[in-house]
Amino acid sequence: MLKISRLVLNGDHLLYFIGLGISEKGLSIEALEILRRVDTVFLELYTSIIPDFKLDWLENMLGRKIRVVDREDLEERGGEDILREAKVADVALLTPGDPFIATTHIVLRIEAERRNIKTRIIHSSSIITAAFSSCGLQVYKMGRIVTITIPEPKVGYRPITPYLVLKENLERGLHTLFLLEIRAESGEFLTIPKALELLEDMDRRVGEESIVDDNTLVVGLARVGTPNEYIAAGSLSELKDIEFGPPPYSLIIPGVLHPIEEEALTTLFDCKLEVIEGWRERVKSVLKNT
Amino acid sequence: MLKISRLVLNGDHLLYFIGLGISEKGLSIEALEILRRVDTVFLELYTSIIPDFKLDWLENMLGRKIRVVDREDLEERGGEDILREAKVADVALLTPGDPFIATTHIVLRIEAERRNIKTRIIHSSSIITAAFSSCGLQVYKMGRIVTITIPEPKVGYRPITPYLVLKENLERGLHTLFLLEIRAESGEFLTIPKALELLEDMDRRVGEESIVDDNTLVVGLARVGTPNEYIAAGSLSELKDIEFGPPPYSLIIPGVLHPIEEEALTTLFDCKLEVIEGWRERVKSVLKNT
Repeated sequence: MLKISRLVLNGDHLLYFIGLGISEKGLSIEALEILRRVDTVFLELYTSIIPDFKLDWLENMLGRKIRVVDREDLEERGGEDILREAKVADVALLTPGDPFIATTHIVLRIEAERRNIKTRIIHSSSIITAAFSSCGLQVYKMGRIVTITIPEPKVGYRPITPYLVLKENLERGLHTLFLLEIRAESGEFLTIPKALELLEDMDRRVGEESIVDDNTLVVGLARVGTPNEYIAAGSLSELKDIEFGPPPYSLIIPGVLHPIEEEALTTLFDCKLEVIEGWRERVKSVLKNT
Repeated sequence: MLKISRLVLNGDHLLYFIGLGISEKGLSIEALEILRRVDTVFLELYTSIIPDFKLDWLENMLGRKIRVVDREDLEERGGEDILREAKVADVALLTPGDPFIATTHIVLRIEAERRNIKTRIIHSSSIITAAFSSCGLQVYKMGRIVTITIPEPKVGYRPITPYLVLKENLERGLHTLFLLEIRAESGEFLTIPKALELLEDMDRRVGEESIVDDNTLVVGLARVGTPNEYIAAGSLSELKDIEFGPPPYSLIIPGVLHPIEEEALTTLFDCKLEVIEGWRERVKSVLKNT
Protein backbone atom coordinates (compact mmCIF):
# COMPACT_ATOMS: atom_id res chain seq x y z
CA MET A 1 0.00 0.00 0.00
CA LEU A 2 1.24 3.49 -0.78
CA LYS A 3 1.81 5.90 2.00
CA ILE A 4 0.01 9.21 1.61
CA SER A 5 2.96 11.56 1.40
CA ARG A 6 3.23 15.08 0.05
CA LEU A 7 4.75 13.64 -3.08
CA VAL A 8 1.93 11.19 -3.65
CA LEU A 9 -0.64 13.91 -3.10
CA ASN A 10 1.07 15.93 -5.83
CA GLY A 11 0.72 12.97 -8.10
CA ASP A 12 4.49 12.83 -8.50
CA HIS A 13 6.77 10.01 -7.51
CA LEU A 14 10.46 10.21 -6.85
CA LEU A 15 13.25 7.87 -7.77
CA TYR A 16 16.08 8.43 -5.30
CA PHE A 17 19.66 7.49 -6.18
CA ILE A 18 21.32 7.04 -2.81
CA GLY A 19 25.04 6.61 -2.13
CA LEU A 20 26.07 3.95 0.39
CA GLY A 21 29.46 5.59 0.82
CA ILE A 22 32.71 3.69 1.18
CA SER A 23 32.32 2.12 4.63
CA GLU A 24 29.87 -0.13 6.42
CA LYS A 25 27.88 2.72 7.95
CA GLY A 26 28.53 5.37 5.32
CA LEU A 27 24.85 6.16 4.62
CA SER A 28 23.86 9.67 5.64
CA ILE A 29 21.15 10.58 8.15
CA GLU A 30 19.11 12.05 5.31
CA ALA A 31 19.43 8.81 3.32
CA LEU A 32 18.26 6.83 6.32
CA GLU A 33 15.17 9.03 6.69
CA ILE A 34 14.30 8.63 3.01
CA LEU A 35 14.88 4.87 3.04
CA ARG A 36 12.44 4.52 5.91
CA ARG A 37 9.83 6.52 4.02
CA VAL A 38 9.89 5.26 0.42
CA ASP A 39 7.76 2.40 -0.86
CA THR A 40 10.50 0.18 -2.26
CA VAL A 41 14.26 -0.03 -1.78
CA PHE A 42 16.52 -1.56 -4.43
CA LEU A 43 20.25 -2.13 -3.95
CA GLU A 44 23.12 -3.00 -6.26
CA LEU A 45 26.49 -4.09 -4.96
CA TYR A 46 28.19 -5.19 -8.15
CA THR A 47 29.94 -1.93 -9.11
CA SER A 48 32.17 -1.92 -6.02
CA ILE A 49 32.91 -3.55 -2.64
CA ILE A 50 32.09 -1.95 0.71
CA PRO A 51 34.15 -3.77 3.37
CA ASP A 52 32.05 -5.33 6.16
CA PHE A 53 28.79 -4.08 4.67
CA LYS A 54 26.00 -6.52 5.50
CA LEU A 55 22.57 -6.54 3.95
CA ASP A 56 20.83 -7.78 7.14
CA TRP A 57 22.37 -4.98 9.16
CA LEU A 58 20.79 -2.48 6.77
CA GLU A 59 17.47 -4.33 6.66
CA ASN A 60 17.38 -4.36 10.47
CA MET A 61 18.31 -0.67 10.59
CA LEU A 62 15.46 0.16 8.20
CA GLY A 63 13.01 -2.38 9.54
CA ARG A 64 12.20 -3.51 5.99
CA LYS A 65 13.24 -5.81 3.16
CA ILE A 66 15.56 -4.66 0.38
CA ARG A 67 15.47 -5.94 -3.22
CA VAL A 68 18.93 -6.74 -4.57
CA VAL A 69 19.45 -6.06 -8.29
CA ASP A 70 22.35 -7.35 -10.37
CA ARG A 71 24.19 -6.25 -13.50
CA GLU A 72 21.68 -8.06 -15.70
CA ASP A 73 18.74 -6.21 -14.12
CA LEU A 74 20.35 -2.82 -14.61
CA GLU A 75 22.35 -3.18 -17.79
CA GLU A 76 20.49 -5.74 -19.90
CA ARG A 77 16.96 -5.06 -18.73
CA GLY A 78 17.73 -1.33 -18.30
CA GLY A 79 16.40 -1.24 -14.76
CA GLU A 80 12.88 -1.80 -16.11
CA ASP A 81 11.62 -3.17 -12.74
CA ILE A 82 12.83 -0.07 -10.94
CA LEU A 83 11.33 2.29 -13.53
CA ARG A 84 7.95 0.54 -13.51
CA GLU A 85 7.80 0.70 -9.73
CA ALA A 86 8.91 4.35 -9.67
CA LYS A 87 6.00 5.27 -11.94
CA VAL A 88 3.51 4.46 -9.18
CA ALA A 89 5.49 4.74 -5.95
CA ASP A 90 8.50 6.35 -4.27
CA VAL A 91 11.55 4.23 -4.91
CA ALA A 92 15.21 4.30 -3.83
CA LEU A 93 18.19 2.68 -5.55
CA LEU A 94 21.21 2.22 -3.30
CA THR A 95 24.68 2.09 -4.85
CA PRO A 96 28.22 1.96 -3.40
CA GLY A 97 30.12 5.27 -2.99
CA ASP A 98 28.59 8.46 -4.38
CA PRO A 99 25.97 7.68 -7.07
CA PHE A 100 26.81 7.97 -10.78
CA ILE A 101 30.45 7.11 -10.56
CA ALA A 102 29.35 4.07 -12.58
CA THR A 103 27.86 5.08 -15.97
CA THR A 104 25.03 2.53 -15.73
CA HIS A 105 23.12 4.63 -13.25
CA ILE A 106 23.08 7.83 -15.25
CA VAL A 107 21.41 5.98 -18.13
CA LEU A 108 18.70 4.90 -15.69
CA ARG A 109 18.27 8.45 -14.44
CA ILE A 110 17.94 9.84 -17.99
CA GLU A 111 15.33 7.18 -18.83
CA ALA A 112 13.40 7.96 -15.64
CA GLU A 113 13.23 11.68 -16.42
CA ARG A 114 12.13 10.86 -19.98
CA ARG A 115 9.21 8.96 -18.45
CA ASN A 116 8.40 11.92 -16.23
CA ILE A 117 9.67 10.24 -13.10
CA LYS A 118 11.38 12.86 -10.96
CA THR A 119 14.79 11.92 -9.56
CA ARG A 120 16.91 13.05 -6.64
CA ILE A 121 20.45 12.16 -5.62
CA ILE A 122 21.52 11.64 -2.02
CA HIS A 123 25.29 11.92 -1.99
CA SER A 124 27.77 10.06 0.14
CA SER A 125 31.51 9.63 0.52
CA SER A 126 33.48 8.57 -2.56
CA ILE A 127 36.93 7.01 -2.87
CA ILE A 128 37.83 9.90 -5.15
CA THR A 129 37.96 12.56 -2.44
CA ALA A 130 38.51 10.13 0.44
CA ALA A 131 41.76 8.76 -1.03
CA PHE A 132 43.29 12.25 -1.01
CA SER A 133 41.75 13.21 2.33
CA SER A 134 43.03 10.05 4.01
CA CYS A 135 46.65 10.34 2.89
CA GLY A 136 47.12 14.08 3.29
CA LEU A 137 47.52 14.97 -0.38
CA GLN A 138 45.70 17.98 -1.77
CA VAL A 139 42.64 17.20 -3.83
CA TYR A 140 43.19 20.49 -5.71
CA LYS A 141 46.24 18.92 -7.31
CA MET A 142 44.39 15.84 -8.53
CA GLY A 143 44.82 15.19 -12.23
CA ARG A 144 42.72 12.86 -14.35
CA ILE A 145 41.64 9.66 -12.57
CA VAL A 146 42.17 6.28 -14.19
CA THR A 147 41.29 2.65 -13.49
CA ILE A 148 43.83 -0.17 -13.83
CA THR A 149 41.93 -3.20 -15.06
CA ILE A 150 42.48 -6.90 -14.41
CA PRO A 151 44.63 -8.28 -17.28
CA GLU A 152 42.97 -10.59 -19.80
CA PRO A 153 45.89 -12.61 -21.13
CA LYS A 154 43.67 -14.61 -23.47
CA VAL A 155 42.43 -11.48 -25.20
CA GLY A 156 46.00 -10.26 -25.54
CA TYR A 157 44.85 -6.70 -24.88
CA ARG A 158 47.30 -4.83 -22.67
CA PRO A 159 46.16 -1.23 -22.35
CA ILE A 160 48.70 1.52 -21.62
CA THR A 161 46.14 4.22 -20.83
CA PRO A 162 46.97 4.32 -17.09
CA TYR A 163 50.61 5.05 -17.91
CA LEU A 164 49.69 7.75 -20.45
CA VAL A 165 47.33 9.44 -17.97
CA LEU A 166 50.07 9.39 -15.32
CA LYS A 167 52.55 10.96 -17.72
CA GLU A 168 50.12 13.72 -18.74
CA ASN A 169 49.33 14.47 -15.12
CA LEU A 170 53.01 14.56 -14.12
CA GLU A 171 53.82 16.93 -16.95
CA ARG A 172 51.48 19.34 -15.18
CA GLY A 173 52.76 18.44 -11.69
CA LEU A 174 49.45 16.79 -10.73
CA HIS A 175 48.71 13.75 -8.57
CA THR A 176 47.28 10.63 -10.23
CA LEU A 177 44.68 8.48 -8.53
CA PHE A 178 44.49 4.93 -9.86
CA LEU A 179 41.43 2.87 -8.98
CA LEU A 180 42.09 -0.87 -9.05
CA GLU A 181 39.42 -2.95 -10.77
CA ILE A 182 37.14 -5.13 -8.69
CA ARG A 183 34.69 -7.64 -10.12
CA ALA A 184 32.42 -7.86 -7.14
CA GLU A 185 30.30 -10.63 -8.67
CA SER A 186 33.13 -13.07 -9.31
CA GLY A 187 35.28 -11.92 -6.40
CA GLU A 188 38.23 -11.06 -8.66
CA PHE A 189 40.34 -8.01 -7.89
CA LEU A 190 43.65 -6.45 -8.78
CA THR A 191 46.12 -6.20 -5.88
CA ILE A 192 48.44 -3.24 -5.29
CA PRO A 193 51.67 -5.19 -6.04
CA LYS A 194 50.13 -6.56 -9.24
CA ALA A 195 48.96 -3.08 -10.31
CA LEU A 196 52.46 -1.70 -9.73
CA GLU A 197 53.90 -4.48 -11.85
CA LEU A 198 51.43 -3.65 -14.63
CA LEU A 199 52.39 0.04 -14.47
CA GLU A 200 56.09 -0.85 -14.71
CA ASP A 201 55.34 -3.07 -17.67
CA MET A 202 53.42 -0.28 -19.44
CA ASP A 203 56.34 2.08 -18.80
CA ARG A 204 58.79 -0.39 -20.36
CA ARG A 205 56.57 -0.97 -23.37
CA VAL A 206 56.28 2.74 -24.11
CA GLY A 207 60.07 2.85 -23.94
CA GLU A 208 60.51 6.54 -23.15
CA GLU A 209 62.49 7.91 -20.21
CA SER A 210 61.25 5.83 -17.29
CA ILE A 211 58.68 7.23 -14.85
CA VAL A 212 57.57 4.04 -13.13
CA ASP A 213 60.40 1.95 -11.68
CA ASP A 214 61.67 0.81 -8.27
CA ASN A 215 62.25 4.37 -7.06
CA THR A 216 58.89 5.88 -8.01
CA LEU A 217 57.05 7.41 -5.03
CA VAL A 218 53.77 5.59 -4.52
CA VAL A 219 50.96 5.76 -1.97
CA GLY A 220 49.04 2.49 -1.62
CA LEU A 221 45.60 2.62 -0.03
CA ALA A 222 43.43 -0.25 1.15
CA ARG A 223 39.90 -0.09 2.59
CA VAL A 224 39.92 3.74 2.74
CA GLY A 225 37.42 5.16 5.22
CA THR A 226 36.90 1.93 7.15
CA PRO A 227 38.25 1.23 10.67
CA ASN A 228 40.73 -1.13 8.97
CA GLU A 229 42.04 1.42 6.48
CA TYR A 230 45.69 0.75 5.63
CA ILE A 231 47.88 3.25 3.84
CA ALA A 232 51.57 2.96 2.97
CA ALA A 233 53.80 5.55 1.27
CA GLY A 234 57.22 4.79 -0.11
CA SER A 235 59.16 3.64 -3.12
CA LEU A 236 57.49 1.27 -5.56
CA SER A 237 59.93 -1.50 -4.58
CA GLU A 238 59.02 -1.06 -0.90
CA LEU A 239 55.29 -1.18 -1.64
CA LYS A 240 55.58 -4.32 -3.73
CA ASP A 241 56.51 -6.25 -0.58
CA ILE A 242 53.61 -5.03 1.55
CA GLU A 243 50.60 -7.20 2.35
CA PHE A 244 47.66 -4.78 2.21
CA GLY A 245 44.93 -7.21 3.33
CA PRO A 246 41.53 -7.42 1.60
CA PRO A 247 40.25 -4.97 -1.11
CA PRO A 248 39.20 -2.38 -2.22
CA TYR A 249 42.51 -0.79 -3.19
CA SER A 250 43.72 2.37 -4.82
CA LEU A 251 47.07 3.97 -5.63
CA ILE A 252 48.29 7.53 -5.87
CA ILE A 253 51.46 8.59 -7.65
CA PRO A 254 52.03 12.17 -6.51
CA GLY A 255 53.08 15.06 -8.73
CA VAL A 256 54.74 18.17 -7.31
CA LEU A 257 54.48 17.99 -3.53
CA HIS A 258 53.87 20.95 -1.24
CA PRO A 259 56.08 20.87 1.91
CA ILE A 260 52.97 20.12 4.01
CA GLU A 261 52.11 17.18 1.76
CA GLU A 262 55.66 15.87 2.19
CA GLU A 263 55.26 16.25 5.95
CA ALA A 264 51.98 14.33 5.84
CA LEU A 265 53.63 11.41 4.01
CA THR A 266 56.63 11.25 6.35
CA THR A 267 54.75 11.86 9.62
CA LEU A 268 51.59 9.86 9.00
CA PHE A 269 53.03 6.94 7.01
CA ASP A 270 56.77 6.97 7.80
CA CYS A 271 57.65 7.60 4.18
CA LYS A 272 61.44 7.91 3.81
CA LEU A 273 62.67 11.41 3.01
CA GLU A 274 65.18 10.14 0.44
CA VAL A 275 62.38 8.51 -1.55
CA ILE A 276 60.52 11.84 -1.61
CA GLU A 277 63.68 13.75 -2.54
CA GLY A 278 64.51 11.37 -5.36
CA TRP A 279 60.97 11.62 -6.70
CA ARG A 280 61.06 15.43 -6.48
CA GLU A 281 64.01 15.49 -8.90
CA ARG A 282 62.33 13.01 -11.23
CA VAL A 283 59.09 15.01 -11.38
CA LYS A 284 61.07 18.17 -12.18
CA SER A 285 62.51 16.50 -15.25
CA VAL A 286 59.04 15.43 -16.46
CA LEU A 287 57.34 18.81 -15.87
CA LYS A 288 56.42 20.64 -19.03
CA ASN A 289 56.71 24.39 -19.11
CA THR A 290 53.18 25.29 -20.05
CA MET B 1 34.24 12.65 33.28
CA LEU B 2 35.76 10.24 30.79
CA LYS B 3 33.79 7.28 29.63
CA ILE B 4 35.55 3.94 30.03
CA SER B 5 35.84 2.90 26.43
CA ARG B 6 38.08 0.36 24.74
CA LEU B 7 40.25 3.20 23.59
CA VAL B 8 40.65 4.65 27.05
CA LEU B 9 41.49 1.23 28.45
CA ASN B 10 44.27 0.95 25.87
CA GLY B 11 45.60 4.26 27.10
CA ASP B 12 45.18 5.72 23.60
CA HIS B 13 42.93 8.55 22.62
CA LEU B 14 41.60 9.30 19.19
CA LEU B 15 41.12 12.56 17.40
CA TYR B 16 38.39 12.05 14.79
CA PHE B 17 38.12 14.33 11.78
CA ILE B 18 34.51 13.99 10.72
CA GLY B 19 32.94 15.29 7.52
CA LEU B 20 29.55 16.99 7.77
CA GLY B 21 28.93 16.46 4.06
CA ILE B 22 27.29 19.02 1.81
CA SER B 23 23.70 18.98 3.06
CA GLU B 24 21.88 19.52 6.33
CA LYS B 25 21.78 15.83 7.27
CA GLY B 26 24.90 14.70 5.43
CA LEU B 27 26.59 13.11 8.47
CA SER B 28 26.97 9.34 8.17
CA ILE B 29 25.54 6.77 10.56
CA GLU B 30 29.06 5.90 11.65
CA ALA B 31 29.82 9.57 12.35
CA LEU B 32 26.69 9.81 14.46
CA GLU B 33 27.70 6.79 16.54
CA ILE B 34 31.17 8.23 17.14
CA LEU B 35 29.84 11.68 18.00
CA ARG B 36 27.62 10.18 20.66
CA ARG B 37 30.56 8.30 22.17
CA VAL B 38 33.46 10.76 22.22
CA ASP B 39 34.20 13.05 25.14
CA THR B 40 34.22 16.38 23.30
CA VAL B 41 32.88 17.56 19.94
CA PHE B 42 34.36 20.59 18.19
CA LEU B 43 32.92 22.08 15.01
CA GLU B 44 34.15 24.60 12.48
CA LEU B 45 31.88 26.15 9.89
CA TYR B 46 34.11 28.83 8.42
CA THR B 47 35.64 26.88 5.51
CA SER B 48 32.29 26.43 3.75
CA ILE B 49 28.50 26.82 3.97
CA ILE B 50 26.09 23.92 4.43
CA PRO B 51 22.61 25.16 3.44
CA ASP B 52 20.00 24.85 6.23
CA PHE B 53 22.49 23.28 8.63
CA LYS B 54 21.55 24.22 12.19
CA LEU B 55 23.73 23.75 15.24
CA ASP B 56 20.77 23.11 17.58
CA TRP B 57 19.45 20.38 15.30
CA LEU B 58 22.79 18.58 15.62
CA GLU B 59 23.02 19.20 19.36
CA ASN B 60 19.52 17.77 19.81
CA MET B 61 20.39 14.81 17.60
CA LEU B 62 23.48 14.07 19.69
CA GLY B 63 21.98 15.03 23.03
CA ARG B 64 25.07 17.07 23.86
CA LYS B 65 26.74 20.47 23.50
CA ILE B 66 29.17 21.22 20.67
CA ARG B 67 32.10 23.64 20.91
CA VAL B 68 32.34 25.92 17.89
CA VAL B 69 35.87 26.87 16.82
CA ASP B 70 36.76 29.68 14.42
CA ARG B 71 39.58 30.47 12.02
CA GLU B 72 41.61 32.08 14.80
CA ASP B 73 41.37 28.95 16.97
CA LEU B 74 42.53 26.68 14.18
CA GLU B 75 44.92 28.81 12.18
CA GLU B 76 46.48 31.25 14.65
CA ARG B 77 46.37 29.11 17.77
CA GLY B 78 46.98 25.93 15.72
CA GLY B 79 44.02 24.12 17.25
CA GLU B 80 45.85 24.01 20.59
CA ASP B 81 42.60 23.55 22.57
CA ILE B 82 41.64 20.55 20.46
CA LEU B 83 45.10 18.98 20.73
CA ARG B 84 45.27 19.44 24.50
CA GLU B 85 41.86 17.85 24.93
CA ALA B 86 42.71 14.98 22.57
CA LYS B 87 45.73 14.10 24.71
CA VAL B 88 43.45 13.01 27.57
CA ALA B 89 40.13 12.19 25.90
CA ASP B 90 38.43 11.10 22.67
CA VAL B 91 37.70 14.16 20.58
CA ALA B 92 35.93 14.85 17.28
CA LEU B 93 36.36 17.83 14.97
CA LEU B 94 33.47 18.34 12.56
CA THR B 95 34.11 20.12 9.27
CA PRO B 96 31.96 20.82 6.18
CA GLY B 97 32.22 18.37 3.24
CA ASP B 98 34.82 15.61 3.33
CA PRO B 99 37.63 16.47 5.81
CA PHE B 100 40.96 17.89 4.57
CA ILE B 101 39.69 19.67 1.55
CA ALA B 102 40.84 22.75 3.49
CA THR B 103 44.62 22.65 4.19
CA THR B 104 44.21 23.91 7.77
CA HIS B 105 43.02 20.56 9.01
CA ILE B 106 45.89 18.48 7.66
CA VAL B 107 48.32 20.65 9.63
CA LEU B 108 46.31 19.83 12.76
CA ARG B 109 46.37 16.11 11.94
CA ILE B 110 50.15 16.12 11.42
CA GLU B 111 50.66 17.94 14.74
CA ALA B 112 48.38 15.47 16.53
CA GLU B 113 50.30 12.46 15.22
CA ARG B 114 53.59 14.14 16.22
CA ARG B 115 52.22 14.33 19.77
CA ASN B 116 51.27 10.65 19.61
CA ILE B 117 47.57 11.34 19.35
CA LYS B 118 46.06 8.81 16.99
CA THR B 119 43.72 10.18 14.33
CA ARG B 120 40.92 8.79 12.20
CA ILE B 121 38.91 10.28 9.37
CA ILE B 122 35.19 9.74 8.88
CA HIS B 123 34.43 10.66 5.31
CA SER B 124 31.33 12.29 3.91
CA SER B 125 30.04 13.69 0.65
CA SER B 126 32.10 16.38 -1.05
CA ILE B 127 31.16 18.94 -3.69
CA ILE B 128 33.99 17.56 -5.82
CA THR B 129 32.29 14.27 -6.67
CA ALA B 130 28.74 15.50 -6.00
CA ALA B 131 28.97 18.25 -8.63
CA PHE B 132 29.70 15.68 -11.36
CA SER B 133 27.26 13.12 -9.97
CA SER B 134 24.44 15.66 -9.83
CA CYS B 135 24.77 16.96 -13.37
CA GLY B 136 25.47 13.70 -15.17
CA LEU B 137 29.05 14.42 -16.21
CA GLN B 138 31.68 11.71 -15.77
CA VAL B 139 34.02 12.21 -12.83
CA TYR B 140 36.66 10.20 -14.74
CA LYS B 141 36.98 13.13 -17.13
CA MET B 142 37.53 15.70 -14.38
CA GLY B 143 40.66 17.76 -14.87
CA ARG B 144 42.34 19.94 -12.27
CA ILE B 145 39.92 21.73 -9.92
CA VAL B 146 40.25 25.46 -9.29
CA THR B 147 38.66 28.09 -7.08
CA ILE B 148 37.54 31.46 -8.39
CA THR B 149 38.13 33.98 -5.63
CA ILE B 150 36.25 37.14 -4.71
CA PRO B 151 37.98 40.09 -6.45
CA GLU B 152 39.95 42.52 -4.30
CA PRO B 153 39.87 45.72 -6.36
CA LYS B 154 41.90 47.64 -3.77
CA VAL B 155 44.77 45.19 -3.97
CA GLY B 156 44.64 45.35 -7.76
CA TYR B 157 45.42 41.64 -7.98
CA ARG B 158 43.44 39.94 -10.72
CA PRO B 159 44.55 36.32 -10.95
CA ILE B 160 44.20 34.44 -14.25
CA THR B 161 44.87 30.96 -12.81
CA PRO B 162 41.26 29.74 -13.27
CA TYR B 163 41.45 30.56 -16.98
CA LEU B 164 44.84 28.86 -17.38
CA VAL B 165 43.60 25.72 -15.60
CA LEU B 166 40.54 25.64 -17.87
CA LYS B 167 42.71 25.94 -20.96
CA GLU B 168 45.05 23.15 -19.83
CA ASN B 169 42.10 20.89 -19.05
CA LEU B 170 40.41 21.61 -22.38
CA GLU B 171 43.61 20.85 -24.28
CA ARG B 172 43.23 17.34 -22.85
CA GLY B 173 39.46 17.23 -23.37
CA LEU B 174 38.77 17.27 -19.61
CA HIS B 175 35.97 18.87 -17.59
CA THR B 176 36.84 21.78 -15.29
CA LEU B 177 35.16 22.20 -11.91
CA PHE B 178 35.31 25.75 -10.54
CA LEU B 179 34.52 26.26 -6.87
CA LEU B 180 33.27 29.76 -6.09
CA GLU B 181 34.78 31.39 -3.03
CA ILE B 182 32.68 31.80 0.09
CA ARG B 183 33.75 33.72 3.15
CA ALA B 184 31.41 32.10 5.62
CA GLU B 185 32.42 34.44 8.47
CA SER B 186 31.62 37.69 6.69
CA GLY B 187 28.82 36.28 4.53
CA GLU B 188 30.54 37.30 1.27
CA PHE B 189 30.32 35.02 -1.72
CA LEU B 190 30.92 35.01 -5.45
CA THR B 191 27.79 34.49 -7.56
CA ILE B 192 27.67 32.42 -10.74
CA PRO B 193 27.03 35.42 -13.08
CA LYS B 194 29.90 37.34 -11.43
CA ALA B 195 32.24 34.33 -11.74
CA LEU B 196 31.37 33.99 -15.43
CA GLU B 197 32.13 37.67 -15.92
CA LEU B 198 35.51 37.20 -14.21
CA LEU B 199 36.32 34.21 -16.46
CA GLU B 200 35.45 36.25 -19.56
CA ASP B 201 37.64 39.06 -18.32
CA MET B 202 40.58 36.66 -17.75
CA ASP B 203 40.10 35.29 -21.26
CA ARG B 204 40.21 38.80 -22.74
CA ARG B 205 43.31 39.74 -20.76
CA VAL B 206 45.23 36.67 -21.93
CA GLY B 207 44.29 37.71 -25.46
CA GLU B 208 44.59 34.33 -27.18
CA GLU B 209 41.88 32.65 -29.22
CA SER B 210 38.80 33.00 -27.06
CA ILE B 211 37.54 30.06 -24.95
CA VAL B 212 35.19 31.87 -22.61
CA ASP B 213 32.58 34.03 -24.31
CA ASP B 214 28.80 34.16 -24.75
CA ASN B 215 28.67 30.78 -26.49
CA THR B 216 30.74 28.76 -24.03
CA LEU B 217 28.88 25.74 -22.64
CA VAL B 218 28.55 26.11 -18.87
CA VAL B 219 26.86 24.13 -16.10
CA GLY B 220 25.94 26.25 -13.09
CA LEU B 221 25.27 24.46 -9.80
CA ALA B 222 23.74 25.86 -6.63
CA ARG B 223 23.24 24.04 -3.29
CA VAL B 224 24.29 20.66 -4.72
CA GLY B 225 22.99 17.71 -2.72
CA THR B 226 20.31 19.64 -0.87
CA PRO B 227 16.55 19.39 -1.52
CA ASN B 228 16.85 22.86 -3.09
CA GLU B 229 19.63 21.97 -5.49
CA TYR B 230 19.42 24.02 -8.66
CA ILE B 231 21.38 23.20 -11.80
CA ALA B 232 21.28 24.92 -15.18
CA ALA B 233 23.18 24.00 -18.35
CA GLY B 234 23.46 26.26 -21.37
CA SER B 235 25.48 28.97 -23.00
CA LEU B 236 27.34 31.44 -20.82
CA SER B 237 25.04 34.25 -21.94
CA GLU B 238 21.97 32.22 -20.91
CA LEU B 239 23.43 31.42 -17.50
CA LYS B 240 24.32 35.04 -16.79
CA ASP B 241 20.60 35.84 -16.64
CA ILE B 242 19.64 33.07 -14.22
CA GLU B 243 18.88 33.72 -10.56
CA PHE B 244 20.40 30.74 -8.76
CA GLY B 245 19.22 31.60 -5.24
CA PRO B 246 21.48 31.35 -2.17
CA PRO B 247 25.02 29.82 -2.15
CA PRO B 248 27.10 27.63 -2.25
CA TYR B 249 27.80 27.64 -5.98
CA SER B 250 30.03 25.87 -8.42
CA LEU B 251 30.54 25.83 -12.18
CA ILE B 252 31.63 23.19 -14.65
CA ILE B 253 32.91 23.93 -18.14
CA PRO B 254 32.84 20.54 -19.90
CA GLY B 255 35.58 19.19 -22.15
CA VAL B 256 34.89 16.47 -24.71
CA LEU B 257 31.38 15.13 -24.04
CA HIS B 258 30.34 11.50 -24.38
CA PRO B 259 26.92 11.09 -26.09
CA ILE B 260 25.43 9.99 -22.75
CA GLU B 261 26.77 13.11 -21.07
CA GLU B 262 25.18 15.21 -23.82
CA GLU B 263 21.90 13.38 -23.25
CA ALA B 264 22.13 14.06 -19.51
CA LEU B 265 22.55 17.80 -20.12
CA THR B 266 19.68 18.01 -22.62
CA THR B 267 17.26 15.67 -20.81
CA LEU B 268 17.89 16.66 -17.21
CA PHE B 269 18.49 20.39 -17.62
CA ASP B 270 16.96 21.26 -21.02
CA CYS B 271 20.31 22.32 -22.41
CA LYS B 272 19.92 23.38 -26.06
CA LEU B 273 21.48 21.01 -28.56
CA GLU B 274 22.90 23.86 -30.65
CA VAL B 275 24.84 25.16 -27.64
CA ILE B 276 26.35 21.69 -27.16
CA GLU B 277 27.12 21.36 -30.88
CA GLY B 278 28.80 24.74 -31.04
CA TRP B 279 30.89 23.91 -27.99
CA ARG B 280 31.86 20.53 -29.45
CA GLU B 281 33.48 22.32 -32.41
CA ARG B 282 35.22 24.82 -30.17
CA VAL B 283 36.70 22.09 -27.92
CA LYS B 284 38.00 20.25 -31.00
CA SER B 285 39.99 23.31 -31.99
CA VAL B 286 41.53 23.60 -28.49
CA LEU B 287 42.42 19.89 -28.11
CA LYS B 288 46.12 19.16 -28.25
CA ASN B 289 47.29 16.03 -29.94
CA THR B 290 49.19 14.41 -27.11
